[in-house]
Amino acid sequence: MALTGRLFIGAKRVTTDAAFSAIDPATGDPLAPAFSAAGPAEATQACALAAEAFRAFEQAGPEKRARLLERIAANIDALGDGLLERARFETGLPLARLAGERARTVYQLKLFAAELRDGACMGVQIDPALPERQPAPRRDVRMRKKPLGPVVVFGASNFPLAFSVAGGDTASALAAGCPVIAKGHPAHPGVCELVAGAVADAVAALELPEGVFSMLNSPHHDLGQALVADPRVKAAAFTGSRQGGLALMRIAQAREEPIPVYAEMSAVNPVILLPGALEEQAEKLGRDFVASLTLGAGQFCTNPGLVLAIQSPRLDRFVEAARKAVEESPPQTMLTPAIHQAYEEGLSRLSSIAEVATVACGAEADGNNLCRPAFFSISVDDFIRNKVISQEVFGASSVLVRCRDAAAFAKALESLEGQLTVTMHFVEKDLATAKALLPLLEEKAGRLIANGWPTGVEVCHAMVHGGPFPATSDSRTTSVGALAIERFLRPVCYQDFPRTLLPAMLRENGPAGVLRRIDGVWKID
Amino acid sequence: MALTGRLFIGAKRVTTDAAFSAIDPATGDPLAPAFSAAGPAEATQACALAAEAFRAFEQAGPEKRARLLERIAANIDALGDGLLERARFETGLPLARLAGERARTVYQLKLFAAELRDGACMGVQIDPALPERQPAPRRDVRMRKKPLGPVVVFGASNFPLAFSVAGGDTASALAAGCPVIAKGHPAHPGVCELVAGAVADAVAALELPEGVFSMLNSPHHDLGQALVADPRVKAAAFTGSRQGGLALMRIAQAREEPIPVYAEMSAVNPVILLPGALEEQAEKLGRDFVASLTLGAGQFCTNPGLVLAIQSPRLDRFVEAARKAVEESPPQTMLTPAIHQAYEEGLSRLSSIAEVATVACGAEADGNNLCRPAFFSISVDDFIRNKVISQEVFGASSVLVRCRDAAAFAKALESLEGQLTVTMHFVEKDLATAKALLPLLEEKAGRLIANGWPTGVEVCHAMVHGGPFPATSDSRTTSVGALAIERFLRPVCYQDFPRTLLPAMLRENGPAGVLRRIDGVWKID
Repeated sequence: MALTGRLFIGAKRVTTDAAFSAIDPATGDPLAPAFSAAGPAEATQACALAAEAFRAFEQAGPEKRARLLERIAANIDALGDGLLERARFETGLPLARLAGERARTVYQLKLFAAELRDGACMGVQIDPALPERQPAPRRDVRMRKKPLGPVVVFGASNFPLAFSVAGGDTASALAAGCPVIAKGHPAHPGVCELVAGAVADAVAALELPEGVFSMLNSPHHDLGQALVADPRVKAAAFTGSRQGGLALMRIAQAREEPIPVYAEMSAVNPVILLPGALEEQAEKLGRDFVASLTLGAGQFCTNPGLVLAIQSPRLDRFVEAARKAVEESPPQTMLTPAIHQAYEEGLSRLSSIAEVATVACGAEADGNNLCRPAFFSISVDDFIRNKVISQEVFGASSVLVRCRDAAAFAKALESLEGQLTVTMHFVEKDLATAKALLPLLEEKAGRLIANGWPTGVEVCHAMVHGGPFPATSDSRTTSVGALAIERFLRPVCYQDFPRTLLPAMLRENGPAGVLRRIDGVWKID
Repeated sequence: MALTGRLFIGAKRVTTDAAFSAIDPATGDPLAPAFSAAGPAEATQACALAAEAFRAFEQAGPEKRARLLERIAANIDALGDGLLERARFETGLPLARLAGERARTVYQLKLFAAELRDGACMGVQIDPALPERQPAPRRDVRMRKKPLGPVVVFGASNFPLAFSVAGGDTASALAAGCPVIAKGHPAHPGVCELVAGAVADAVAALELPEGVFSMLNSPHHDLGQALVADPRVKAAAFTGSRQGGLALMRIAQAREEPIPVYAEMSAVNPVILLPGALEEQAEKLGRDFVASLTLGAGQFCTNPGLVLAIQSPRLDRFVEAARKAVEESPPQTMLTPAIHQAYEEGLSRLSSIAEVATVACGAEADGNNLCRPAFFSISVDDFIRNKVISQEVFGASSVLVRCRDAAAFAKALESLEGQLTVTMHFVEKDLATAKALLPLLEEKAGRLIANGWPTGVEVCHAMVHGGPFPATSDSRTTSVGALAIERFLRPVCYQDFPRTLLPAMLRENGPAGVLRRIDGVWKID
């Protein structure tokens, strides 16, 4: 599997003068080959091709888009284990995890192909004319959804396959009918090139316009900025830091035509331990918590970075079990030297706060960019006073908020910012408390988890991987699951159009088996 | 029907030191009584009450919200003709139009009550657990939509009933479960007070928390600014000028927590006349165009402010018929002195452009704030060069763009900004041209109209009253029709929750007759 280091501008493979390399985080050494970095000039070319491709891509229709997604999935599978091996070198992630992530990536592509065939995502509603209606006739009005236009997808460092070049954002944008300009993550440029080849080959095989897909990469911010600022781009999807997401939101809003930025930025994913649950299983909860905390070196958006519970001897048992588990956790390589450095800085920041006690911290180990898990604790009053505590430290770090009573506990929950998830552990005797907390928790997060752990996001129809600001830029959406396609669609209605000019899905006898609403009544023909 | 001039802060009726009056635009005279103006202090109180009411309002459930909407509708009807008479004095609109608008307002409220009972708007999806799935079991994941939180609704000047205190934005926000702080329009404060009474009485009759509804009014911008900036407010809906909408968008984005602003700002609603249609019915098109142009003194968001056609003798026949109709149009009172003045300034601005020819202009008539309709023309090149031409002049003003050939015509269409509507007139022989234009037109507007006129927005399930920026701030939404409720909802999912803690609509046996998606399959139980 020979890597060329070139960029994908439509069907062209481009080399630039600026070059950068991936680093193997396990060794700290650069990996061959050198990769071309794209700048504003390449961004402009890719955007122009995407805009050119837009209409033809939409006109190709949902079935063709479904086949494109399936072809991309097949092409990724066909890359075989070479893809996983390159990913392991570039990310430090173990092969088994990467194999699972590849399966998820392929599944996501197929899910959106299935969504296109299901057809409900196109939101068809038909209100036939009522010529006899008094005092005035009703016109014939028919609605369906259309793609927004070219979309920029920012690859995330922590999912080199499932949220990178052909990840969930790309799959849902292509499904919607939006050409995609993928901004690869510079930490895994080889994986980006391999996957971009899989996508570009599928675009070519289906004889779609080349501008349907481009992949640019760069270690510098100016590329992403230029892409979001380009007037031909109509939306952007991003998974990364709060700082990065906010910067893109500002660029998108400062455009002559503001556009939506779907930024999944950060969260500490609070875990609430109710008294009954602690009483019955403090030790198990402590161990399972640390398993979730340290999964993938804590490098998940849904990592449990905050634990809230009422002070008690049961809680002390939980803490003791967690302490032991943290200290026994083997060190894991982090994704990049920069992420490792930021993690260490985050730990130092927390340790240096007088009110923060260190419960446990993994030993410093020999090796490059190793994550040592850490667990801190703080009193509820200090937690509420100090906003820094509730900011994400990306990696296997978490803070326990010790609440002196139920009132302080409720106050701590009220003080939380928007989150991707909130987890609650409870048993039968906690039910009344759990029920009373639910309305608040629903306001704080996109996904509520009962007696489980936030890591592990199921790709399914009902999934919400989103949540109130600052977890995301837009709480009305999800970036995982079938509903993600809605981010890239807008409704258009047709008044009194003759049958020949209507899109097929809006005609009297539409495609078989598709959910449509006709005169207010839901029907599957 | 005694007016008190007081503000509605929840159940309280409040008088402030600052007072303002409505003006009868037909006479130019102030109307009694004096109305209290609200400022930032009253905004804060209303927002605090709304936030307090939020959870209880949502917990009251969809059926109770449906009954609230129906009660509001009944209360508005019960205000009788006194409401219409006050509206006539405050707006200069004829009674027949106002009676129609009242019927629409009442219908909108009932439509959203019906939507709540239909239940599909809550977006229920259930993916049951698959404990045997390999390589890992699937968790039970269930999604439904939740209200965003308190919403600020800005009343529009041009729909004192249907897009004001209890108009479409309020109806859809209340349906979603969002408390509403209505910012009344200072041009019709009496109507605002009467309708606010109808809403507040309904809130009280249903024993809902008082904060579910407040109504503040002021002739100054600081009130609306304070409302959108308040951290307890989670969304805003606005219909008005581009300048006003952009200002609110900026405030919303500058907040610590940015929020969505649904601003329906402006449009010129291009009308395209294809050659065959002109050939067959140039005169009729000219007359019908002017009827749409002058409807309600042109004070509609969907007013046809731009006409595009290829130069020909047929087009000259259209122009001649339109000229005659414009000159014969009786003058109509505009909504406010400020709107009349802005309209006159708009006409002067257009007339003063050397490249703009005046086709026809209604005679200056004796009376206050009278709209004289105006029709201008310009060559396609001058149109493309001069962006001012395609900016809305609110009132009965329109510009014809004379295109020398099909290529110039296409270029003019490409140059258009986002619109609420695009209308196309065509006959059998134009079908190929019409079909070829459709993809472009779909990119330009939320609603496409065949052989009709853009004025008159049907309130139905399939309606899209929206469109790409700058017609609105968010092309993914509509402010008229059933889909408008989606603006105020966000999805939340529940993972592995026991039945007793799940919302009723997410349980195995949900409410009867509601569309739900179960394991990817759409079902109505």
